[in-house]
Amino acid sequence: MIDASRFLSDLHHLRSFGAQGAGVIRPAYSPPDIAARDWLAGRMRTAGLKVQFDAMGNLFGLAEGPSLLLGSHSDTQPTGGWLDGALGVIAALEIARAAHEAGGPAISVVSFQDEEGRFGGTTGSAVWTGLMTLAEADAAVDTDGITLADARRALDGRAGPDVDPAPFTGFIELHIEQGPSLDVAGEQIGVVTDIVGYRQTTVTLTGQQNHAGTTPMALRRDTFQGLSAFNTRLNDRLRNVVTPQSVWTIGHVAVAPNASSIVPGQVRFSMQWRDGNKDRLDRMQGVIETTLAEVCAEMGLGLAMEPILGLDPVAMDEGLRARLATAAEAVAPGRWRQMPSGALHDAANVARLMPVAMLFVPSIGGISHAFEEDTTEEDLIVGLKVLARAAGVSA
Amino acid sequence: MIDASRFLSDLHHLRSFGAQGAGVIRPAYSPPDIAARDWLAGRMRTAGLKVQFDAMGNLFGLAEGPSLLLGSHSDTQPTGGWLDGALGVIAALEIARAAHEAGGPAISVVSFQDEEGRFGGTTGSAVWTGLMTLAEADAAVDTDGITLADARRALDGRAGPDVDPAPFTGFIELHIEQGPSLDVAGEQIGVVTDIVGYRQTTVTLTGQQNHAGTTPMALRRDTFQGLSAFNTRLNDRLRNVVTPQSVWTIGHVAVAPNASSIVPGQVRFSMQWRDGNKDRLDRMQGVIETTLAEVCAEMGLGLAMEPILGLDPVAMDEGLRARLATAAEAVAPGRWRQMPSGALHDAANVARLMPVAMLFVPSIGGISHAFEEDTTEEDLIVGLKVLARAAGVSA
Repeated sequence: MIDASRFLSDLHHLRSFGAQGAGVIRPAYSPPDIAARDWLAGRMRTAGLKVQFDAMGNLFGLAEGPSLLLGSHSDTQPTGGWLDGALGVIAALEIARAAHEAGGPAISVVSFQDEEGRFGGTTGSAVWTGLMTLAEADAAVDTDGITLADARRALDGRAGPDVDPAPFTGFIELHIEQGPSLDVAGEQIGVVTDIVGYRQTTVTLTGQQNHAGTTPMALRRDTFQGLSAFNTRLNDRLRNVVTPQSVWTIGHVAVAPNASSIVPGQVRFSMQWRDGNKDRLDRMQGVIETTLAEVCAEMGLGLAMEPILGLDPVAMDEGLRARLATAAEAVAPGRWRQMPSGALHDAANVARLMPVAMLFVPSIGGISHAFEEDTTEEDLIVGLKVLARAAGVSA
Repeated sequence: MIDASRFLSDLHHLRSFGAQGAGVIRPAYSPPDIAARDWLAGRMRTAGLKVQFDAMGNLFGLAEGPSLLLGSHSDTQPTGGWLDGALGVIAALEIARAAHEAGGPAISVVSFQDEEGRFGGTTGSAVWTGLMTLAEADAAVDTDGITLADARRALDGRAGPDVDPAPFTGFIELHIEQGPSLDVAGEQIGVVTDIVGYRQTTVTLTGQQNHAGTTPMALRRDTFQGLSAFNTRLNDRLRNVVTPQSVWTIGHVAVAPNASSIVPGQVRFSMQWRDGNKDRLDRMQGVIETTLAEVCAEMGLGLAMEPILGLDPVAMDEGLRARLATAAEAVAPGRWRQMPSGALHDAANVARLMPVAMLFVPSIGGISHAFEEDTTEEDLIVGLKVLARAAGVSA
């Protein structure tokens, strides 16, 4: 039988590693991250699990024989909230502990390393699932110029052999939504249908830098005007292609020379789009490329696009989804929904190895990656209970 | 009789102070600026003028009795061209010299200090004309944190008493256009009708910073989208208010946090507009303010506007303009026009004290404030000749 107060107590204890006001500063391989993993390892042992770190610092608490794997990550953003990742790890711990106490079923626990991207994003699960080799990961560099190879020396003898994924029958990750949809709707659980794919590029428009007083409007090749015209036309055209779940964002803009009296000769900007459907990602890309080319031709601007990076959408396993849906209706009748995950999670990598599913609890105000990130205690416990029922553990 | 080759020789000599490739680095009070002023002072003496520096470092070469004042400035942008300012000073020197050799008329010469704005812009002529006190100017700070009070110590004993403006009957400034209009039209002279006024403010839009994957489009308060919507609507609406001489520019944009995966929670941008007519500046301002308020209300964005700074338009003196027009038609028949000055010049300040006028020669490709700034030798000499005729000196 799961114990909600023991779960909350552990969740608050994990929060104390790297605590900073209401938030947490516990990036991958930092002293608070390593200390938190040591504490987690101890709690796993107490819960009857066999503890194993791999070379990346992914921390596993293994049940004997075939088992369902639950978990998430315990590293945080540079200025992170207390629930992002931590919730899924501590819920997994409580459920594995309750299952061990009850004599079954077999539940294993994982806290992946560097989900938050000190070295790129979901780095620990990417290496564990073979998306990336350890050597490739080791070459990655953080914003201070430190390589992952250097950073993971902080593991200092903890790392053991690779953890064999064969005994795991599936993986379920509980996470905060990190968006406002559940909170706005007053719902308690989101059963994830798929982790949306994303594509991203950086676009450079080149025009003519000029004096903002002496250059008539008709003779300007103003790259900020180019960006704005592209954005306006793109918004119009994407309406014919997208669903309410599709998103697109221009989040980074660098105007040059960026002076109030100079017509901008260059602008670089990020163009990112996300959707749960690969064909729709393709169609959005087509609209973006066509609109860019059109606007640049009309306005006499040079156009350069960096290679498009991204990930394809990952569908959740039908069987595990059905178990989550049944559990959600039992615990929070009428107050849950099926929904895509707009954010990337470790589950997207783990899907390479086994059936995966995810569930969300609400983020108050949709706030995440910030000290203010929070979820009501009631919703945290509802999330724990739904996950436990789906895992076959008495809630 | 003016001497075109002596004029070109002096112009190239001035270019050697702070020369860098085809360009010049000679900001106000720098060692090359002081050396250039010392050389100019020597040339003025040789031309029969009485040399006087004022406390700001404005350099005057004074003819006896009432005289027409000609000139411009010899300081440059941090990466400046060879003609901006220098042309007007050396043309004035040549014409004063020729007039002295011919026994009249009385022509005085000035090279103002800090026109290019190491300490704000047209600082030397602002103090001379009483727009600003010396104490106010002294408090100004450059981008390295140096005060003007400290910087002008480089004058090291050169400064004498204030120069009395009473004997000057008027002021004419020859300058490069710094825009493309004459070059595009294949014309040689622009007789300036007025120096356009400008207004400028910095606008901050505040929305909600959010995860770009998890925040549905309908729930976003994206400040970059706010800026783009404002810009598009503003362009539409200004068409009903402006003339082909009106300009408006968003040259500085700072998106925060400026990351590709984060919906921008804040954007700060510059909004600048210029026109030769004060009423039109007012009407443009009305459209800008109304459109900003409208877009922010529609999109749920916070709006803050810094106080609007600027200068009113300055009309050129009718009598001096007519002399320039007559001279232009004589020297370059059919290849000159009346036009506004889109850039600010010292003449705008000097108009507080006496009748002023300006004339332009073409900038190749409209390029200025850059090492590539240039004008054909033919056009430089045409400019010299038109100015000389307007000043009553044999060309």
